[in-house]
Amino acid sequence: MIPTLAWTPDGVRFLDQTKLPLEESYVLASSYEQVAEAITSMVVRGAPAIGVAAAYGVALGALRTKAATAREFALEFDSVCARLTATRPTAVNLFWAIARMKRLFAGLLAAGATLDQIKEKLLAEAQAMYNEDIAACKKMGTFGAALLPDEGGVLTHCNAGALATCGYGTALGVIRSAVEQGKRIHVYADETRPFLQGARLTAWELMADHIPTTVICDNMAASLMRAGRIQAVIVGADRIAANGDTANKIGTYNVAILAREHGIPFYVAAPWSTIDLATATGEAIPIEERPAVEVTHHGGKQLTPNGVGICNPAFDVTPAKYITAIVTERGVLRAPFGESLKAVGRS
Amino acid sequence: MIPTLAWTPDGVRFLDQTKLPLEESYVLASSYEQVAEAITSMVVRGAPAIGVAAAYGVALGALRTKAATAREFALEFDSVCARLTATRPTAVNLFWAIARMKRLFAGLLAAGATLDQIKEKLLAEAQAMYNEDIAACKKMGTFGAALLPDEGGVLTHCNAGALATCGYGTALGVIRSAVEQGKRIHVYADETRPFLQGARLTAWELMADHIPTTVICDNMAASLMRAGRIQAVIVGADRIAANGDTANKIGTYNVAILAREHGIPFYVAAPWSTIDLATATGEAIPIEERPAVEVTHHGGKQLTPNGVGICNPAFDVTPAKYITAIVTERGVLRAPFGESLKAVGRS
Repeated sequence: MIPTLAWTPDGVRFLDQTKLPLEESYVLASSYEQVAEAITSMVVRGAPAIGVAAAYGVALGALRTKAATAREFALEFDSVCARLTATRPTAVNLFWAIARMKRLFAGLLAAGATLDQIKEKLLAEAQAMYNEDIAACKKMGTFGAALLPDEGGVLTHCNAGALATCGYGTALGVIRSAVEQGKRIHVYADETRPFLQGARLTAWELMADHIPTTVICDNMAASLMRAGRIQAVIVGADRIAANGDTANKIGTYNVAILAREHGIPFYVAAPWSTIDLATATGEAIPIEERPAVEVTHHGGKQLTPNGVGICNPAFDVTPAKYITAIVTERGVLRAPFGESLKAVGRS
Repeated sequence: MIPTLAWTPDGVRFLDQTKLPLEESYVLASSYEQVAEAITSMVVRGAPAIGVAAAYGVALGALRTKAATAREFALEFDSVCARLTATRPTAVNLFWAIARMKRLFAGLLAAGATLDQIKEKLLAEAQAMYNEDIAACKKMGTFGAALLPDEGGVLTHCNAGALATCGYGTALGVIRSAVEQGKRIHVYADETRPFLQGARLTAWELMADHIPTTVICDNMAASLMRAGRIQAVIVGADRIAANGDTANKIGTYNVAILAREHGIPFYVAAPWSTIDLATATGEAIPIEERPAVEVTHHGGKQLTPNGVGICNPAFDVTPAKYITAIVTERGVLRAPFGESLKAVGRS
């Protein structure tokens, strides 16, 4: 399994995704500040992965504290959580994971747990979230594989794979599961400017699994669809609002429109922790604007003229009407998503 | 005016578009073979510009011949034209320009012209085509400016500017003309992977003219449209079939679908030499597949894992139904384009 992130006695070890595919190197985050930095700089990225990373970050905040007692650590705890919360605004898994750690901590504190017990329990919770992520991806894979054709081209955007999770993937987990079932899938990976998650990460991890993969520039999708080379689209998600509107990597909305125009089903695969029933529609999802340098430069080389204006929103919102189905570990949801999400959320 | 290509006593001088925007350097093509190489390697690109470049190439073939007489040169002439024809398959201006030079040559030969007369006339014809290109762009500018909003965002894809023509531009000529008329246009330039004509060339030439410009990645267009920041789209063309189907830089078809989905007008600006009434529909337009290295590498640095599949079609075809109007130097054409193109072609 691809070691996206792993707990070690010294802290969290991240496979450095800024260096892939040419270099397979690791970054050790031995403090919560270093975990926060790894999330901000996209050493680790992908909504499910940064959720679990943040949970480990909270655990590290406890493990590395100089406080002598639980009460003393409680004075620091909020700032640990605030630092990890401030890393990236769009993916809700981050906030979900930190909120879960906060609830656990509040309960332990109220129950009079010792600092050592708190350290142990916070780490165990992060480990549990790690294991749950893998289990959820496997379930999504099983549910989602049935949606993919027995043979054909499947387009994906960005990386919703092992590298975006703890090791199996959401959208790519569905593809992996379909391939394991014997389906003959050829993956078309949008290169996904500006960070090139498709060209660098999706291509790298699918090649590692010997799944046939072709990288295309983001602007080639429509012509491939028209040529009949794409039978389905599947992507991940960073936040799904209560009505099914889905924030995901910039360009996802483009692909969703193109798919509908060509009569191609458009699927979203995401764990339940990506669903934000407290956010009514996509309009309310905050969209991160990343530094212009990601667009203006590549590998230290400048692409654009000095001083030109740049847009670099990291995400866009695909309205629910473009989505054929949402694959979660609780099953495959269909429109109207407002109702299906509410019903499954209750169950 | 931007010196995209210029005739000099030593041959054709090209502004090297592979080096822009960071380096403003020139390539001198002093033989027809060097002109062909400049076209293939995209030192010069853009349908109108490569048409005129090829005409100069034919003239250079005559000027540099070792033949002593017109009859002797006639034995070489076809291979000069064949070499220039074999450079790029999609833009019809190239074939149009070479055919025009061939007709002139055949007439001169039949009329018993001397080799010196032929050299002089072929060069004069290329010069005429250069001047006609600038005049056509200015006319398109005047006709097309009326289509753009008095104030607002205009999205363009690739570079259909001074750098794609002899110095004013087709789509960007329309924008220039609108700005000269006092319209307050903010240009959004798709970066246009993989060759980055938008990020490198459109941004460079619009900044030189102090026209406000923001570069976006190709996959950001839909979210900007949804946010109300784009009021019109205007692009160039490499070949327009008799029914209005338009081949242009890869990604144009994507943008056309997105524009229609958001109720935004989608305009094509191209000189009459881009219109190919002999090609019935877009299905018959050959699409150039360029080397994979344009996608896998940038600035010598590898982006993708070794051995991954790559698609790199240089163009796509936008069906006529997505096009609001076609701006030519003969006026603004509207649907049904089969009829309007035929009518204007006859006039």
